[in-house]
Amino acid sequence: MSLSFIHDETPTEEVDRREAVVAGLADSVRALVDATIRTTVDDDEVRAVQAEVAALTERLRAAQLPGPAGVRYNSEGRSWSWGNAVVGSSNAVAPPLEIQHAGDGRTSYAEVVLGAAYEGPPGMVHGGVSALLLDQVMGETASANNSRIAMTGTLTLRYRHPLPLGSVRLDCQVTKEADGKITVQATIGETAPDATPAVEASGLFVVPRWAR
Amino acid sequence: MSLSFIHDETPTEEVDRREAVVAGLADSVRALVDATIRTTVDDDEVRAVQAEVAALTERLRAAQLPGPAGVRYNSEGRSWSWGNAVVGSSNAVAPPLEIQHAGDGRTSYAEVVLGAAYEGPPGMVHGGVSALLLDQVMGETASANNSRIAMTGTLTLRYRHPLPLGSVRLDCQVTKEADGKITVQATIGETAPDATPAVEASGLFVVPRWAR
Repeated sequence: MSLSFIHDETPTEEVDRREAVVAGLADSVRALVDATIRTTVDDDEVRAVQAEVAALTERLRAAQLPGPAGVRYNSEGRSWSWGNAVVGSSNAVAPPLEIQHAGDGRTSYAEVVLGAAYEGPPGMVHGGVSALLLDQVMGETASANNSRIAMTGTLTLRYRHPLPLGSVRLDCQVTKEADGKITVQATIGETAPDATPAVEASGLFVVPRWAR
Repeated sequence: MSLSFIHDETPTEEVDRREAVVAGLADSVRALVDATIRTTVDDDEVRAVQAEVAALTERLRAAQLPGPAGVRYNSEGRSWSWGNAVVGSSNAVAPPLEIQHAGDGRTSYAEVVLGAAYEGPPGMVHGGVSALLLDQVMGETASANNSRIAMTGTLTLRYRHPLPLGSVRLDCQVTKEADGKITVQATIGETAPDATPAVEASGLFVVPRWAR
């Protein structure tokens, strides 16, 4: 199966400008998601807020893409995927993660605060959320910071101990590479300097034949 | 590490009533999340909507829980985790998944529509989102529909082919159980009758020593 990347000739300067605007809205929607989980205001007020949320949604839908945001690129080499579930700057489901790639492109790092929206066991990061973030970090690192396409082949996660909600860090590195198959190791854990990883991940990523 | 489940003596009838109210708000926030990703209205309108979203957030924060929602239970045997990242009815990050458990508690099934907020590769479900949903379904099935505590030990995911955004189904079963260790198999794929699984998962879940 091939994937449809969208050639979008918006100049990079304009892409950056628009991204800042929609990222601002998405940040505010993230706060609304958190407040929706934690609010204890009375039923009538919840219903009143709901009606206002619906009205705002209609205003945004006055002009919209026919489907998902997709992954876009222009001739200047800028690519963007604002709708991505982990790193998408316009997607309030995404924390969003900002991944730092090291110079050689084979290691990466990220730090993010995970709040009430990412809960699984009480007070803890959902185990599947750890898997979600690790998959993105590992995929991006396997793809050498999006300079090639690498799809997840297998992903193995070892859960060492629960990870409290709050500040977390991810570390990732490519450990092996041959014939379009890339092995990646990664961890997620607390940010405290003496913290041991809560989850260890190993992944095999594949550069699709059509993209080699 | 022990986990803090909250004993909350709200009567089941009142829990059900309040859940319907907050779930209604969360549904509207999900639509707003989608519209935020897909909107193409002009910058001024995006900023105007953002200001209104912030005002609504303040209204909800007039009274709120000090932290995440946690997992609650009452003496009638009702438990609820409205903030859960996959199944939480008040959490707009969650699709939310409604998991159907078979009579024996060892098999389960779920069907859900995944929209623009769950995108990874263009037009496709994020590989990490598949992992997130699978982890929840497998954990719940290992815990026999939440009648015991089962934490993820290891999770192995095999990605067979990309999964388009849209209607997806998950199938899960416990295949082995001994000494507090539970092996679970699960798949996620398209809902078409002839569809082959996009992702196959195998998980080892553990009943913590303190909970046996």
